Amino acid sequence: MTLKFRSVALFGKYHAPGSAGGASTEASRQALEGIATYLKAQGCEVVVERETVANTGIAGYRALDVDTIGAECDLGLVVGGDGTMLGIGRLLAAYGVPLIGINQGRLGFVTDIPIDTYQATLTPMLRGAYEEDHRSLMHARVMRDGQCVFDARAMNDVVVNRGATSGMVELRVEVDGQLIANQRADGLIIATPTGSTAYALSAGGPLLHPSIPGWVLVPIAPHTLSNRPIVLADPGEIVIELVAGRDASANFDMQSLASLQHGDRISVRRSQHHVRFLHPKGWSYFDTLRKKLRWNEGNS
Amino acid sequence: MTLKFRSVALFGKYHAPGSAGGASTEASRQALEGIATYLKAQGCEVVVERETVANTGIAGYRALDVDTIGAECDLGLVVGGDGTMLGIGRLLAAYGVPLIGINQGRLGFVTDIPIDTYQATLTPMLRGAYEEDHRSLMHARVMRDGQCVFDARAMNDVVVNRGATSGMVELRVEVDGQLIANQRADGLIIATPTGSTAYALSAGGPLLHPSIPGWVLVPIAPHTLSNRPIVLADPGEIVIELVAGRDASANFDMQSLASLQHGDRISVRRSQHHVRFLHPKGWSYFDTLRKKLRWNEGNS
Amino acid sequence: MTLKFRSVALFGKYHAPGSAGGASTEASRQALEGIATYLKAQGCEVVVERETVANTGIAGYRALDVDTIGAECDLGLVVGGDGTMLGIGRLLAAYGVPLIGINQGRLGFVTDIPIDTYQATLTPMLRGAYEEDHRSLMHARVMRDGQCVFDARAMNDVVVNRGATSGMVELRVEVDGQLIANQRADGLIIATPTGSTAYALSAGGPLLHPSIPGWVLVPIAPHTLSNRPIVLADPGEIVIELVAGRDASANFDMQSLASLQHGDRISVRRSQHHVRFLHPKGWSYFDTLRKKLRWNEGNS
Amino acid sequence: MTLKFRSVALFGKYHAPGSAGGASTEASRQALEGIATYLKAQGCEVVVERETVANTGIAGYRALDVDTIGAECDLGLVVGGDGTMLGIGRLLAAYGVPLIGINQGRLGFVTDIPIDTYQATLTPMLRGAYEEDHRSLMHARVMRDGQCVFDARAMNDVVVNRGATSGMVELRVEVDGQLIANQRADGLIIATPTGSTAYALSAGGPLLHPSIPGWVLVPIAPHTLSNRPIVLADPGEIVIELVAGRDASANFDMQSLASLQHGDRISVRRSQHHVRFLHPKGWSYFDTLRKKLRWNEGNS
Repeated sequence: MTLKFRSVALFGKYHAPGSAGGASTEASRQALEGIATYLKAQGCEVVVERETVANTGIAGYRALDVDTIGAECDLGLVVGGDGTMLGIGRLLAAYGVPLIGINQGRLGFVTDIPIDTYQATLTPMLRGAYEEDHRSLMHARVMRDGQCVFDARAMNDVVVNRGATSGMVELRVEVDGQLIANQRADGLIIATPTGSTAYALSAGGPLLHPSIPGWVLVPIAPHTLSNRPIVLADPGEIVIELVAGRDASANFDMQSLASLQHGDRISVRRSQHHVRFLHPKGWSYFDTLRKKLRWNEGNS
Repeated sequence: MTLKFRSVALFGKYHAPGSAGGASTEASRQALEGIATYLKAQGCEVVVERETVANTGIAGYRALDVDTIGAECDLGLVVGGDGTMLGIGRLLAAYGVPLIGINQGRLGFVTDIPIDTYQATLTPMLRGAYEEDHRSLMHARVMRDGQCVFDARAMNDVVVNRGATSGMVELRVEVDGQLIANQRADGLIIATPTGSTAYALSAGGPLLHPSIPGWVLVPIAPHTLSNRPIVLADPGEIVIELVAGRDASANFDMQSLASLQHGDRISVRRSQHHVRFLHPKGWSYFDTLRKKLRWNEGNS
Repeated sequence: MTLKFRSVALFGKYHAPGSAGGASTEASRQALEGIATYLKAQGCEVVVERETVANTGIAGYRALDVDTIGAECDLGLVVGGDGTMLGIGRLLAAYGVPLIGINQGRLGFVTDIPIDTYQATLTPMLRGAYEEDHRSLMHARVMRDGQCVFDARAMNDVVVNRGATSGMVELRVEVDGQLIANQRADGLIIATPTGSTAYALSAGGPLLHPSIPGWVLVPIAPHTLSNRPIVLADPGEIVIELVAGRDASANFDMQSLASLQHGDRISVRRSQHHVRFLHPKGWSYFDTLRKKLRWNEGNS
Repeated sequence: MTLKFRSVALFGKYHAPGSAGGASTEASRQALEGIATYLKAQGCEVVVERETVANTGIAGYRALDVDTIGAECDLGLVVGGDGTMLGIGRLLAAYGVPLIGINQGRLGFVTDIPIDTYQATLTPMLRGAYEEDHRSLMHARVMRDGQCVFDARAMNDVVVNRGATSGMVELRVEVDGQLIANQRADGLIIATPTGSTAYALSAGGPLLHPSIPGWVLVPIAPHTLSNRPIVLADPGEIVIELVAGRDASANFDMQSLASLQHGDRISVRRSQHHVRFLHPKGWSYFDTLRKKLRWNEGNS
């Protein structure tokens, strides 16, 4: 079989705000070098993302920024955890470059190739034998007095929540101009199917299969017990308006705007782009769920 | 405006197995007669479903069975609660006849026109001013040794559950040939968006907007705490196989097959038909949710 | 019957930090004056708490601070909501002065006498016909490097939670020197039975009857799904240590210490005092629960 | 140190109705023989429970029934899982004979000594170095027309639930003559602290520390979403009356009475006896919880 992806970009661990470290820099560099050598042996042209070069000191490869990678490369190979993978995915979505995730620590929801055995797994994938898994992306904005004061993309979730020492917020939630509810709660999560296995799950939300063309709204510690999670099918726009509450903040995949003001409107739309993740042939979303959620082991 | 629905069929309360009564027979007959008189005055031709005639003794109208109504009528008008509306909806789905629901007791999720004020509401609806609300339908079967031993349609849910004095069942759940999980629980609910406000909600499931082209699987009292509800997007076929447990049963909208045997496979597919509910102009699904779940009143 | 409580102190609405207003100042003053006149007619000596005098302008009564009231009065009469009642209860607990609550707005969990009908209810109570309801109180402290840096009493709950724009906190929880768990979550609530109907309920905790000599630990959006609420029987000391997480805070009935540091230990003990609430004869905790949680109305 | 328990009774796996097998008969016999030999070498006099003799064919030891063991022995040693341990505990409670549990399969909540290493663990325990763990016991009866028609003890729970193909039951719940609620649900669980880690946990109940002198009421799939679990402190009597619903049953630790009738009253009182479990020195309830609920491993 012939090589399907000629130009491959390597990405190392993305250091999200507040995240704890994982593998050491030295270990990361060695892992990346091993993978780069393997890729060259497979016939690929290898570049390394500029920040990854800066973080790890890997040398001997062309260093490109993400936008250039998006414009020039055929494939991104991410070595890290789910957080890294989603961060890169957000940045590359507009370019349609697919991503493969190699986990250095434990199995992730989307980084599903263990670093110990990556060669046997990648060899057929580089030649076109893979499962393609598309994930939707949210485009969220904070509108204040008709102006956009904060703007970001999110693969997991948009969260509006109360300040740390404040009581509940009151949020008015609308979809396509229709009132859903006025909710008093610690906050509200709007999660994609990808995000349904993250924070939304902890807050009591359901799992959404990635092929669901919609989102789930999960209230956090709602005052009204019947305020249950609700799954919406591909709405045009969801708007959350801050009605009451102090020190509230908006968080788009943990990219934050603190000090929301009463009347601020957080608008969430589906991005026109989606993210392409590639998995080994035979991959099943449910296999990953079972492993990650330990469904086979029981809780007792 | 001209009349849009010329031939209208009247349906009274459907007595589902195990349901308690509502309005008395006498009150039901008077309500139906009043509506029939009103419909004639509007220019409609009125027929009454045969069972409704038998139950209420209403006289002076052609009595038709449901299939003939499906073949001949333009509209069904149901006077009763949600259970009645869904039961009729299941029967008429194949014919594409739309339904309007008038509630005699309290507001339902789908029977949203109070009997006290039906005339003002129906007059514009009969002339084409309404919101149309499509609901999906499940076609479920119990397969034993390759034979179908039970077959029914369901608008709310398909439930497989343990016997009353038995321990947990073990269920193997597959979607389109892929294993989702082996679950030990009291049972498993597969609910449509319509059913997501019924039993599935009590068991901890999320709300699904009717436009979601999928279903939610809600485990009932699962042994493994991470066995959370999962929303699937329009799967071809879900199969639940009874692996272990005594006296288990399958219930499709409460139509039951008791005494399931190990190895029995409950197959659930989307019916090719859907049910058409008509609501007054300006109707919003969320308005109904708010009222039914008392979101505006708080719980304290 | 003879008067049981001769000296009665009146308390108006307590303005907790961040609470929204209720009745206007003018309405509050009029309500208090009416009650004071009634109490005098019953033979009571009436004093008014100093802050209440300042807030409402009520004149003609001796104004005392809370400690003097505790030392001198036989009964406190609180006109306000549950928040006011609990705030006063916390202050008076050390003196053993019982409290009666009159609600100006809607029924509270502990302020259960409607202002419209208070005379018929209070008359027998003032003569000794009442149910006595004791509530436990927590004494909580934040220890940093062996020093107490924050110290307060709480009737509802002690909450440790993450900052508004931060990820999860990691908390190490011990009871009487034994490790319970290391939890990653949005936070942790330790609630009294009184607090079990407040924030802890929103976060998924159970209801605790007031006679339970213990507390419930309720994790807020825990990362591990099997981290369920746990009820402890009258422990000597619970300690929550902040292991990881930024901008965490400690909140004792909403009295807050922000900017917790790693290694800070929040210690919670049962106060040696308890709070005495008096209710009309025939009062039942469960009647109040049913009304407040709308158990009789259903959710659909 | 001198031997504290001279006369020790051995119990093998108890086959609860509907339970699946565990270790084979041959393996069970060998395990019991090994333990008996060890106990004799420690200076104990060994007897074997009669059913265990019949089930395993173990020979050479006096075979006694449970009542004689209760009257004559100093200690029971149970080789099996939690179900076996609780079943024996129920039977021996009246005699005050303590129990030690050796698990043949995986760690239980109360059978916490692995069979592989029992000798090192038991040697000090037989000489008095252990932690004592008392568990409360429920005495439950079904009353019909003033007569007791079913009577049993339960260590885990009393469950009233609907028939397999029936809709909800309606239950009227009272405590010491006070109405708690009229609930419509699949059923209701009354669990001891021991039972709080079993079925009640699956149904959404909290964990109760064994020292809690009370029980938790957990509704199963309640119609009203605010019908939350409630913890009661050592009530005198809880009564559940079946108000509506077909084919309901009462289950006391899975000992069942099917076909409840409307008006049947299930009465639950605390047994005057409790069960004594012995654990190795240093045992902590929370250590067991953490292991069984996998709190240290996270769910992702």
